[in-house]
Amino acid sequence: MTLNYANRISNIKASEIRELLKLTQRPDVISFAGGLPAPELFPIEELKKISKKVLEENGTAALQYGPTEGYEPLREKITERMAKVHVNVTSDDVLITSGSQQGLDFSAKVFINPGDIIICESPTYLGAINAFKAYEPNFIEVETDDEGMIMKDLEEVLRNNDNVKFIYVIPDFQNPSGKTWSIERRKKLVELANKYNIAIVEDNPYGELRFEGEIYPAIKHYDTEGRVIFLGTFSKIFCPGLRLGWVVADKEVLNKYILVKQGADLQSSTISQMEVAKFLEEYDIEKHIEKIKVVYKKRRDIMMKTIEKEFPKEVKYTYPEGGLFTWVVLPAHINGRELAVKILEKNVAFVPGGSFFPNGGNENTFRMNYSNMDEERIGEGIKRLGIAIKEMM
Amino acid sequence: MTLNYANRISNIKASEIRELLKLTQRPDVISFAGGLPAPELFPIEELKKISKKVLEENGTAALQYGPTEGYEPLREKITERMAKVHVNVTSDDVLITSGSQQGLDFSAKVFINPGDIIICESPTYLGAINAFKAYEPNFIEVETDDEGMIMKDLEEVLRNNDNVKFIYVIPDFQNPSGKTWSIERRKKLVELANKYNIAIVEDNPYGELRFEGEIYPAIKHYDTEGRVIFLGTFSKIFCPGLRLGWVVADKEVLNKYILVKQGADLQSSTISQMEVAKFLEEYDIEKHIEKIKVVYKKRRDIMMKTIEKEFPKEVKYTYPEGGLFTWVVLPAHINGRELAVKILEKNVAFVPGGSFFPNGGNENTFRMNYSNMDEERIGEGIKRLGIAIKEMM
Repeated sequence: MTLNYANRISNIKASEIRELLKLTQRPDVISFAGGLPAPELFPIEELKKISKKVLEENGTAALQYGPTEGYEPLREKITERMAKVHVNVTSDDVLITSGSQQGLDFSAKVFINPGDIIICESPTYLGAINAFKAYEPNFIEVETDDEGMIMKDLEEVLRNNDNVKFIYVIPDFQNPSGKTWSIERRKKLVELANKYNIAIVEDNPYGELRFEGEIYPAIKHYDTEGRVIFLGTFSKIFCPGLRLGWVVADKEVLNKYILVKQGADLQSSTISQMEVAKFLEEYDIEKHIEKIKVVYKKRRDIMMKTIEKEFPKEVKYTYPEGGLFTWVVLPAHINGRELAVKILEKNVAFVPGGSFFPNGGNENTFRMNYSNMDEERIGEGIKRLGIAIKEMM
Repeated sequence: MTLNYANRISNIKASEIRELLKLTQRPDVISFAGGLPAPELFPIEELKKISKKVLEENGTAALQYGPTEGYEPLREKITERMAKVHVNVTSDDVLITSGSQQGLDFSAKVFINPGDIIICESPTYLGAINAFKAYEPNFIEVETDDEGMIMKDLEEVLRNNDNVKFIYVIPDFQNPSGKTWSIERRKKLVELANKYNIAIVEDNPYGELRFEGEIYPAIKHYDTEGRVIFLGTFSKIFCPGLRLGWVVADKEVLNKYILVKQGADLQSSTISQMEVAKFLEEYDIEKHIEKIKVVYKKRRDIMMKTIEKEFPKEVKYTYPEGGLFTWVVLPAHINGRELAVKILEKNVAFVPGGSFFPNGGNENTFRMNYSNMDEERIGEGIKRLGIAIKEMM
């Protein structure tokens, strides 16, 4: 028996990362593959106290249905996070989602008819590509340099296509490239979006994890007309297991997201929302983020130093100023997927770069995560990788 | 500025229930409106112990990303719930979702192209209508009698329409009608679905809440070809605040749901899944369900007895053998929405029935919930309603 599925189903395939993650759960594998935070930094003791308190003080409400928009005190607290990236909003501008992945799915659901165009960075986040593909868009990738998307290229795309629905960008420590947009490019992006009346979906999971210098204002900060939809998450600054993120947008736009949320899952977990709100009330999340940054910075440093020493000089890579990832470009004749297979035999894993390009190609690339392994394993893994790459040169 | 949204957005509107719920949160309102479980029955003390234990024994895993399919021990435990409705499956056949509402959304996402037909009971669950509408289907409603959908009518629809994608049914204590399908109809439904090669989406949130007699086998029990997709939830037998439900389906079909889940939100909350699994391991959920049934039965009894006494004899209603709802059909000239406005002034709330008909009409109906109010308030609310109806006769 074969049932008759929707057309969209033939578009979506399993995420290479999540499939790979299953293989790399063996403890002897040095994995640079996932985007997993360091679990030893999770505030377990604090959460034990918090969850007891929430159930004691507010147990029946915590286990009951709640509003689609989210738990009001948590929405309030999120306005403080937004202030950190220089965005001034009230709790009315915030919708709680089940991770920022849900914000990606909703963005396509709100804007995309089959055949509409999504503009994205080249490369871009694989999970976003998969979420978007279910709505049957066409992707146009725009090249980036060290300051973000190349604006001349972007404008050409906007000028020549009248069914662009939104521009999807990850301006801080991009996944997968590790790159960060300059202030100038952020301003220019909003200017062009205004000119062509296009929405911007700003995915910002890592902005607060800057290891050096000041946090950049979000693109939403430069939004003059309410066309930037900001997606945030607690996954990287707190923990991913609770599945809580948020959308900040102009009221008219946010209302569409709220309607979509209602149909999709009614609301996110009441109790998890209360727990995170309580945590933010009773503990110093800034101190917690500092702790994360110190650890990730050390790991980034050891990864970058070892790459510099062990990789052949023909290999190019990003020096990320924050976030979780670096990005490697091999000489054109070396295939990232072949390297991945070869190096998994030496118990090292990464994600081949091809999947981060919605229109394919660029197989000589890969993404590496440094947040989830300790320094010794990072050094050892990079050494093994260096040897394998040299063998393929 | 107005952005250019997807066509589907004009299809979806705010759920009348959730909007109404906001109005009925005043403590002086006797609300029969929501489908809220009785919060005084939530296992708060048990959850306090459980959540501490999960964080102590398994804290880092609980707060980390987990597999899209769900936490394996919880999937195992769900096979036991399925056995209760006479369905034999292994954990491989189970996908954990964020409430069964997410299962509804995914069902349309997996099967529906714009213009495809969904067959449903008339009336049917409002939240399902809203979830489905985002995928731009056409609905064909099939009349029901006291044994379920009328099979002659169903077959006529199937014979005359070649783009039916699935039949959506709530066979036990239906929301909103309170009716239950007979065994014969369940068998016949599968027979017809086989004949016309159509999927069945069986939404079964209340099946275990039967107040008298034996639990009926789910429609999935009679599935001979793997075409029944079963949606379950912990919302009514445990608590809704954790947002956990499940899909049980044939492997080929379930794989589509898993792909869709990956794009939609990666996975449901790791820690909530671990908590529910632990609860099911350490406590007797059967005893807990018994406790719920005793309370709801009493409330149903008082509601039905007071209706019989206070409503004019021209008013028809369902006597539900379980679940959370009864359904009232007024004489044709009385409008349920008008009655709702009138009775809200007397601090009583219900949901007008019109919204439960995807193609409109039937405004002389309404749905009442009896699980969320104590017996005294139920009696008082029904009395006030009786007076108001008599005034409109």
